[in-house]
Amino acid sequence: MNDRGNDKYLLTPGPLTTSLATKQAMLRDWGSRDSEFIAITRRIRERLLAIAGVEDSHAAVPVQGSGTFGIEATLGTLIAPGQRTLVLTNGAYGKRIVSILERIGRKVSALDWREDEQVDPVALETALRNDFAIDYVVVVHCETTSGILNDMAAIGRITKAHERRLIIDGMSAFGAIPIDVGRVPFDALIASSNKCLEGVPGMAFALIRKQLLELAEGNAHSLSLDLYEQWRGLEANGQWRFTPPTHVLAAFDQALKEHQAEGGVAARHRRYCANRDILVAGMRELGFETLLADAVQAPIIVTFLMPTHRRFDFARFYDELSERGFVIYPGKLTVVASFRIGCIGALGATEMQAALAAVKATLTAMDIDTLAPPAAT
Amino acid sequence: MNDRGNDKYLLTPGPLTTSLATKQAMLRDWGSRDSEFIAITRRIRERLLAIAGVEDSHAAVPVQGSGTFGIEATLGTLIAPGQRTLVLTNGAYGKRIVSILERIGRKVSALDWREDEQVDPVALETALRNDFAIDYVVVVHCETTSGILNDMAAIGRITKAHERRLIIDGMSAFGAIPIDVGRVPFDALIASSNKCLEGVPGMAFALIRKQLLELAEGNAHSLSLDLYEQWRGLEANGQWRFTPPTHVLAAFDQALKEHQAEGGVAARHRRYCANRDILVAGMRELGFETLLADAVQAPIIVTFLMPTHRRFDFARFYDELSERGFVIYPGKLTVVASFRIGCIGALGATEMQAALAAVKATLTAMDIDTLAPPAAT
Repeated sequence: MNDRGNDKYLLTPGPLTTSLATKQAMLRDWGSRDSEFIAITRRIRERLLAIAGVEDSHAAVPVQGSGTFGIEATLGTLIAPGQRTLVLTNGAYGKRIVSILERIGRKVSALDWREDEQVDPVALETALRNDFAIDYVVVVHCETTSGILNDMAAIGRITKAHERRLIIDGMSAFGAIPIDVGRVPFDALIASSNKCLEGVPGMAFALIRKQLLELAEGNAHSLSLDLYEQWRGLEANGQWRFTPPTHVLAAFDQALKEHQAEGGVAARHRRYCANRDILVAGMRELGFETLLADAVQAPIIVTFLMPTHRRFDFARFYDELSERGFVIYPGKLTVVASFRIGCIGALGATEMQAALAAVKATLTAMDIDTLAPPAAT
Repeated sequence: MNDRGNDKYLLTPGPLTTSLATKQAMLRDWGSRDSEFIAITRRIRERLLAIAGVEDSHAAVPVQGSGTFGIEATLGTLIAPGQRTLVLTNGAYGKRIVSILERIGRKVSALDWREDEQVDPVALETALRNDFAIDYVVVVHCETTSGILNDMAAIGRITKAHERRLIIDGMSAFGAIPIDVGRVPFDALIASSNKCLEGVPGMAFALIRKQLLELAEGNAHSLSLDLYEQWRGLEANGQWRFTPPTHVLAAFDQALKEHQAEGGVAARHRRYCANRDILVAGMRELGFETLLADAVQAPIIVTFLMPTHRRFDFARFYDELSERGFVIYPGKLTVVASFRIGCIGALGATEMQAALAAVKATLTAMDIDTLAPPAAT
């Protein structure tokens, strides 16, 4: 954890702090159609399937761009014009899925919850019972807006019982929060290189049930984002259709090796949970309050209510933490006034303790002893 | 040129050989919404406009992904459903533009030429004179399929005279082949980080006339590829809408500094022309023939006809060149049997001479004295 040079630590939902070895993997150039690079792509695709335990049933299809590119590509490729989708939303990323479906001309309805509430499986069950025209259910595993975890086992069970298709936005969960395809029989799961797998940003990927992919020819609204064609190309000759971000892939290959060496999903989950617990306990000690109840707080990113103390100035808080070596998320996504601190990336207990020390020093610099609101004057 | 460690040289149309300093710029992590990264994005956008000399009239809009993503994003954002586009094609990249427009539901027609022929401005003039319904003309500046240069001055003059909009795929030309917006009044020009600007792959960008961009709200067929929204977001707060490939941007920032330090487009053009001239002369000396006439050969990539010598085996040729440290393009895009060797990237006369020595050694290893076809036995 201390091999990262003069970098600041990124306590954000990604891009995040990566290991030095992951970054060093970018110190050479690859021909994107050369056998050495084809081997990198193949290793990554195989490893992603293995992490999810879906080697036989699914295919891993990478795509250039951010996580949103991966989401849009998957939705556009799998959902045919005319098919209907129900999106379960409790934050900005769920709402973005609705926006994508509207933009690409797919029929969509949504069930919405507050951003500090889990999606309610009972409401899903009612919706599916009453509306046979729904083909797909889409949900975000960990809503990065607040850091809330959704109950994927219940959602998976209900979706399967009603014989609908399930697409999971696993962006900020995959690789650190276990997901068992036996209990959560997903048809597609999308994530990106720069979240819990601790690579650098530049590519997303989808794990898609092959049966479904085989039926998806010609669905996509976009040439670049057509995952059917991307898959066919990769299966044919191991090459990406269009120039891949070669250095990003090389870094991701290294990051996946480190994920495996650490002990895979279980070990990464333990480390991130420990990071979160240190962060939450320490921040509470300083008087901060979390938005979420502990029972639904994922070990990814924690939302703290914006302190009402009259000397607390968030812009200054952000800048001074940055000067002390910790970059947090500089704005809010929630409806309520809040800020977020991430606990994922190549960092552990030492770094989380150091981050807390930086928070404490920053409060002191602001002349704040306690965050309890000042008595009325 | 000799600061690149143990890398092989990439004699391809990109990804290409980058400088060590460009790769080393990726050795730290950035928060994508942090002020330091916002400054990187701003510098890059300003520099791209300056290279084209369009600081006042155009905006630089970057987008995640490969060059094709940038092309699709630009076409989808600027061309409204219902508008008509004429594509001038003399290779695979022109044909891909037609495919994109068909896929995204835009009205398109094409004028086609052979891959060893320039697009004919006279035919364009006739088409525009006879068809007032054409709104946009799209053409590839340097068709990487063969390496042929199109006559942009003539195409620009005719398109302007007929008051149509001009979109240029400048992918493998921008940064090394001068383009004067006064003589070629383009409305949009698209290129990517990993061609003549010598960055690493992972982002594309478009230089778009602001007047046109302002009218483009709601056109795009895709949320991720909507350059109007991307532009509005960048203008509002300097941030990308969705996670950018931060390390790729940092490398591009460094690559652009090196482009400027070298002397900009004019100096890079000179170096690439010298590279091409060394390559073509040396290969001809060994008996290889070029597909193109010298007058239309761009200083980017050279297509050689596949030798008919019975002991010439291209797979072996490719592998042995690679073992000797030079990766060429491993397949053909042209209709005729051919292979391609690039002359762009962080390399100069020394490296081109070394590449020729490797070609010669490989021919010797194949027991080929001369590439003249063997006498009939």
